[in-house]
Amino acid sequence: MSDLTFNIKANSQSPAKTSVKARNFEILVDEPAGLGGTDLAPNPVEYVLAAFAGCLNVMGHLIAQEMGFELRNLEIDIKGELNPAKLFGKSDEQRAGYKYISVILKPDCDADQPTLQKWIHAVEERCPVSDNLQNRTPVKVEIVREEIAN
Amino acid sequence: MSDLTFNIKANSQSPAKTSVKARNFEILVDEPAGLGGTDLAPNPVEYVLAAFAGCLNVMGHLIAQEMGFELRNLEIDIKGELNPAKLFGKSDEQRAGYKYISVILKPDCDADQPTLQKWIHAVEERCPVSDNLQNRTPVKVEIVREEIAN
Repeated sequence: MSDLTFNIKANSQSPAKTSVKARNFEILVDEPAGLGGTDLAPNPVEYVLAAFAGCLNVMGHLIAQEMGFELRNLEIDIKGELNPAKLFGKSDEQRAGYKYISVILKPDCDADQPTLQKWIHAVEERCPVSDNLQNRTPVKVEIVREEIAN
Repeated sequence: MSDLTFNIKANSQSPAKTSVKARNFEILVDEPAGLGGTDLAPNPVEYVLAAFAGCLNVMGHLIAQEMGFELRNLEIDIKGELNPAKLFGKSDEQRAGYKYISVILKPDCDADQPTLQKWIHAVEERCPVSDNLQNRTPVKVEIVREEIAN
């Protein structure tokens, strides 16, 4: 199969608010007041959890279908914990991002427990967002300047 | 500083569409038709890039302020490439998620190049989403069943 490329274009609307364009969609990102924002939209780390939930839903259905059972519904609760000390430049003792992420899946289906164990193993293994969170992903950052300061 | 907990609750609206609740916000996740969805919203891997952009914006402004220069505007373009073979269960040769993510930052400011290099280094280092993408994050998945099949 050929590689798929995904891209977004984002623009700072204020120090904590970002307007993101993904294809024909606009995604607004903000921070709650306590984290310096105007609280008009979910914040970046909440979007990470939302992306993970969306991916688990797609993979959950795809793999249930492959395994031959019907998933009538799927609820997904996700929680993550981070310490903001590194983000705020107060301490380097802990990592900047989520220290862990925990997921509770509530599938409505008739599959038995061993089938669901196989299912969840395949879901986690093949879910792109799960892979990008659980394993290292190379990131290259480049600065492009339209004008150079004198 | 105390740990911060973030959480979302998601519900499958169809095999590819997910409604996610983060605090008082609703985030809709879907897939384009070519990936089995109804194309009503960005897809999970696009939300990952949007989360990253939002986080880079927040950190970019915070660190510019610490370093004493004004960031008048910041544009952020992010691209990622993945091969869908593993996702679709066709092959295990490549990883499921993004193989790489590349970011172009276009800061509008008067800082000189060495200052911007320091800035971007600190931004990447202290950005929670950057950390969760570039480093491993433990994920625990649990299945909870309301009713057990007979």
